Amino acid sequence: MLQSKIFGKTNKDSKQYDSVNATLLQKAGFIDKTMAGVYTFLPLGARVLQKIEDIIREEMDKLGPEVLMPAIVPKELWEKTDRFDNVNILFKAVGANKASLESNDAEYVLNSTHEEVITPIAKKFNFSYKDLPFAVYQIQTKFRNETRPKSGLLRCREFRMKDLYSFHKDEKDLLGFYDEVKKSYTTIFDRLGLGQDTVVALASGGDFTDGFSHEFQTKCETGEDLIFHSKKLNIAYNKEVAPATAAPFENIKEKELPLEEVEGKGIIGVEELSKYLKIPVEKTTKTILFETDKGKVIAAAVRGGYDINEAKLKKIVGCKILALASEQVVKKVTGAQIGYAGFINLPKSVDIYLDDSVAGRKNFECGANRTDYHSINVNFGRDVKEPKKFYDFKIPKAGDFNPETGEKYEVFQACEVGNIFPLNTKFTKAFDYYYSDKNGKKQIVYMGSYGIGSSRVMGVLVEKFHDEKGMNWPENVAPFKVHLLQIGKDDEVAKKAKMVYDKLLSQNIEVLFDDRIGINAGEKFAEADLIGIPYRFVVSAKTKDKIEIKKRTEDKVELLDLKELLVRVK
Amino acid sequence: MLQSKIFGKTNKDSKQYDSVNATLLQKAGFIDKTMAGVYTFLPLGARVLQKIEDIIREEMDKLGPEVLMPAIVPKELWEKTDRFDNVNILFKAVGANKASLESNDAEYVLNSTHEEVITPIAKKFNFSYKDLPFAVYQIQTKFRNETRPKSGLLRCREFRMKDLYSFHKDEKDLLGFYDEVKKSYTTIFDRLGLGQDTVVALASGGDFTDGFSHEFQTKCETGEDLIFHSKKLNIAYNKEVAPATAAPFENIKEKELPLEEVEGKGIIGVEELSKYLKIPVEKTTKTILFETDKGKVIAAAVRGGYDINEAKLKKIVGCKILALASEQVVKKVTGAQIGYAGFINLPKSVDIYLDDSVAGRKNFECGANRTDYHSINVNFGRDVKEPKKFYDFKIPKAGDFNPETGEKYEVFQACEVGNIFPLNTKFTKAFDYYYSDKNGKKQIVYMGSYGIGSSRVMGVLVEKFHDEKGMNWPENVAPFKVHLLQIGKDDEVAKKAKMVYDKLLSQNIEVLFDDRIGINAGEKFAEADLIGIPYRFVVSAKTKDKIEIKKRTEDKVELLDLKELLVRVK
Repeated sequence: MLQSKIFGKTNKDSKQYDSVNATLLQKAGFIDKTMAGVYTFLPLGARVLQKIEDIIREEMDKLGPEVLMPAIVPKELWEKTDRFDNVNILFKAVGANKASLESNDAEYVLNSTHEEVITPIAKKFNFSYKDLPFAVYQIQTKFRNETRPKSGLLRCREFRMKDLYSFHKDEKDLLGFYDEVKKSYTTIFDRLGLGQDTVVALASGGDFTDGFSHEFQTKCETGEDLIFHSKKLNIAYNKEVAPATAAPFENIKEKELPLEEVEGKGIIGVEELSKYLKIPVEKTTKTILFETDKGKVIAAAVRGGYDINEAKLKKIVGCKILALASEQVVKKVTGAQIGYAGFINLPKSVDIYLDDSVAGRKNFECGANRTDYHSINVNFGRDVKEPKKFYDFKIPKAGDFNPETGEKYEVFQACEVGNIFPLNTKFTKAFDYYYSDKNGKKQIVYMGSYGIGSSRVMGVLVEKFHDEKGMNWPENVAPFKVHLLQIGKDDEVAKKAKMVYDKLLSQNIEVLFDDRIGINAGEKFAEADLIGIPYRFVVSAKTKDKIEIKKRTEDKVELLDLKELLVRVK
Repeated sequence: MLQSKIFGKTNKDSKQYDSVNATLLQKAGFIDKTMAGVYTFLPLGARVLQKIEDIIREEMDKLGPEVLMPAIVPKELWEKTDRFDNVNILFKAVGANKASLESNDAEYVLNSTHEEVITPIAKKFNFSYKDLPFAVYQIQTKFRNETRPKSGLLRCREFRMKDLYSFHKDEKDLLGFYDEVKKSYTTIFDRLGLGQDTVVALASGGDFTDGFSHEFQTKCETGEDLIFHSKKLNIAYNKEVAPATAAPFENIKEKELPLEEVEGKGIIGVEELSKYLKIPVEKTTKTILFETDKGKVIAAAVRGGYDINEAKLKKIVGCKILALASEQVVKKVTGAQIGYAGFINLPKSVDIYLDDSVAGRKNFECGANRTDYHSINVNFGRDVKEPKKFYDFKIPKAGDFNPETGEKYEVFQACEVGNIFPLNTKFTKAFDYYYSDKNGKKQIVYMGSYGIGSSRVMGVLVEKFHDEKGMNWPENVAPFKVHLLQIGKDDEVAKKAKMVYDKLLSQNIEVLFDDRIGINAGEKFAEADLIGIPYRFVVSAKTKDKIEIKKRTEDKVELLDLKELLVRVK
C-alpha cells in the first residue's frame, strides 16, 4: 500500500491519553476516537484487527463452525433469563425519532453477549444425544453501556469479540471440551505474540458454578485486574478469588500496654485513624457487621489496609445473602452509630469471624462500640478471647502469601484477553433445552461459553510491545511485514524504490511504501518507528545499489542486495 | 466439513415464507430467523456471506483501503445534517434498564449509513489539495427500523453492507471516480454470478443532485423495484425516474357523444368509477389539485390507471414544494368536495397540466367539479380546450414507451443490489469540510457514496439460482465446491469416502462430506439438491472403484476415477 494514499495520517500533535495504546494508536493513525469508548479502525488498525481475527478464526475452526448472530434481538430472550432488567451495561435499540417510533415502536436488546441468542437456536436444531456435543463460534461486534470507558481499546462501549458456545450431554463432557478450549486459547495467544506473558487465572464462577471460571490474563501495567501467581503450584488467581495469608505485621515483641478508649469523633477510615492515633495502619482494625439471609447478625474483621471479600465470607458463613447491617441493627448490637463497631464486647448472639490479618498483633486498635470512641492497645487473651480459628476472607494485596505453599505471591496487573465459563445449566434451564438420551429420557443440556475480545487484544499488544519511539508489532499481526522508505526524490531513487516495492508485492510480501515526497528522512524514520512495522527497508542515494534493512526491535542496520533481502524476510 | 457436525440442519418441515430465498435458506439451514427482518447466519450461510464479502473486498481494495467504523455514534453527528429527527428508519441505542441508564443515560445513533461518521474523520486527516482525491470503504453491519421487513434477506432490520465513500476536489473529479466505481461494481456482480441479469438503472438523485444516482438492479420477481429498460438507448430507469409516453388508448374512431353530468355519490376511485359508469378504466381521468410553494393552485391530470409522480411534476411546474390542496382550497376552486375535481371548467387562476396519457381519447370521464357528480363523454375541442403541450408526469407502467426512441420499454421487477450516489456537497457542507487549493484558497470538498448490501446479495442469489428442488449456488459463492455423499454404511464404502474426503482436503478443495449413517440415499440426494453445492460426488457400493459425479445444474451423471475427478473440479 502506498503511504501517500493511506487514510489516517500519523498525528504528532495527538494528545496523551490515559493509556499507551490509546495514545500510540491514535498518534500513529491506527484508530480514531468517535466518542468515549467508541473508535473507528483506520486502514492500519483495520489490518491489524483482521489479522488478529484471522488467527482466532483459524484456531476456532478446529473446534466448531463459524456462525454470525444478530446484534439486535427481541428483549423477550433476555427476559427469559431475567437479565433484561438486571445487566447494568445492557443497551437497547429503539426508534430514534417520532416517525421511526410510529412505524415500529418495539424495543430490542443490543447484545453484549449471545447466550440468549444461541441457546434457543441450538435447541431448535439439536435435540438428540446423537447431536451432542457441538460448538459454534462467531466473530462479531458487541455493545456495553460502560459508565466510564477507558484505556483506549481495553474498555469500550463497542468492541469486537469472538464468542464460542458449546453444548454437552453432561458436566464431564463439558469439562473435557473446556480443557480443549484452554489449549486452543494457549495456541492463539502464542500465535498473537502474547503467550509468554499470558497466564490462565482462576476467577469467579459467577452464579453458574461453585467452581471457578478461567481468565486468560496478560501482564500489563494498565490492566484492570490484579493477579496472584503461585509459582510453586503453577496457578494464578484473579484477586477476587485468590486464597491468601496476610503478610504478617511484626510487633509481637511489643510490651502490652493498658487498654484505653480514645475519643475520635467522626474519625472512621483506617488511614485517618492511623494518623489521628499516631499508630501504623496495620494496628487498626476494620470490623463490619452484616445480616445474613438466616436473620443472624455477624461481625467480620480484617486488619487496617485490607478489605473484605464478601464472596469468600459468604462461603465461610455458609449463607447466600450477606447485607451490611442497617443503622438500627448496628445501634442495637453495638450501642453506637455506624463506624465505631469493634469485635470486642459484642453481644453473644453475634458470631465473630476474624481474618488471619487480624492475628499476631499486639496493642491494636479496634472500634469501641461507643459512638466517637476507639479502643486502643487491645490484646488477644487479655481483652478479647483469641478465636480457635482465623479465616481468609480478605481481598489480598501484594505481599500476601499462598496459604498452601507459604510462598509469597508474584502479584501483577493484568489485562483479561480471554475468558472461559462453564455455564453448566444456567441458560439451558432458562430456555428448557433438554435432549433425549439413548433411552429416550429427557436430560438437561450442559453449556460452556468462551470469549476473546479481538479489539481489546489489539490494545494489549500495544501495551506490551512498544518503546519510547512507538509501537512494535509482532510479525503475525503487524499491519505490514515491511515498511519501505524512499528517502530523497531524485529519479534514480524513486525508480529503484518503486522496483523494490513491485518486487515485494510480486512475492506476496505485505509492504507499506512511504513514497511521499517533501518529507525528510528524520520524519520518515520517526514515523516508521511510531507505526512499528517489523522490517524497515530504506532506498536512498546513499544506499546505492543496495537496500538498507533494519528490524524494528534491533539497532543493527545492514546493507543488502535485493536477493539477500528477500531471503531475509521470507 | 463433516455434515454430521454441522450446526443448522436442513428442515423439511420448514414453512413457506413470502419469498423463495426466505423459504429455501431456512429450509436448508443457511439462516435462522431470530425475529422479523433479523437472521442468524448458520454455518452454511455464514460461509456464503463471507465469500460474497471477500469478492467485494478484493475489488474494493483496488479503489481504497478498508476501515471499520462504529455502529453507535453520538446523535450530535446526525443532528448536524438534520437527519436525527427526520430519517424514519433510524434506530437509537440507549441504556436498557434502570441500572444501565443510571450509569450512562446518553443516546446514540445506531447507524443505517455512515456519511455522518466518515465526513468528520476525513476532514480531520485530509485538508489539502494534495490529500484529494481519496476513498475508503468498510464491510459492516447496519440497522434500519423497517415497518415491515420482508422477503427474507431482501429487506431486513439488521443487514450486512459494504459502503465506500470518496472525496474530491471538484464535481468533475467526483464523476470520474464515480465511473470507476461503476466499472468495479460491474466486475463484482459478474464475479458474484449476477452480471448477466444486473443492469445499471438511473434513479433519483435525492436532494444531493439535480442529476441521477445509479442503482444496480438484478432482475428478480420478488424485487421491490420496477425497471424500465430501453434497449435502443441501452439505458434502464427505476420507475421513479423513467420518462414515459403512455401506451395509447385506442378509441379515436368513436363518435362524439353528448356531454353529461352523472350522479355518482361517493364513487371516487377510478376502478369503482369504471364499473359504475360501465366504461373502461382508460376512459376515466384522475385530476389532482396541488398548492405550490409560490402560493399557486394547480391541477394535474392523468388517465385512469396511472398515478402522478410528484417529483416529475415539480420539475415541470418549477416549484420546490407541491402539497395536495386542502379541503378548503379544493372547495373554493371547484365548488365541490374533494374527489370530484376535473380539469374542465376550472377558474382561470388554476394552471392545468395534462399528462400525455390523457391525450388522444374520445368520450372520456372527468370530475364535474360538483359534489357527487362526474362528467362523461368529455371531448377535447368541444368541451375543453386541447392544451398546446401534454407532459410526462406519470408513474409509468408496463406497456409504456420510451419518449425518445418510441420503443416499448422492457419492464421487469428487480432487486437493488448496489447503489452509487454523487452526494456532491450535502455532507461536506454540513460538516464544514473544506480543503486548501494550490493557491491556499478554501474550497468545498465533493463527496460520493457507494453501497452494496452483501447479505441482500445472498438473498438475490437464491431468488435467481434455484429450481423446484432447491438452491443452485454459483461456484464463486457456493458454501463448498463439492458435496461428497457416502451412501450406505459398510466399511469399504466408509473407508473409500473418507479417502476421497481427505484427498479433496489435501488439494484445498472445499468439501462438505455427508458422512451421516442411517439416512437413506433418497434423502441424501434431496438434501444435496436443496443445499445446492455445484458438484455432487457419490461413493457407494454401486460406484465400486469409481466415484459418481454430477453437477447441480445438469442431469448428466458420470463415473470417474479419483484422478479424473480432481482434474474435473480444478
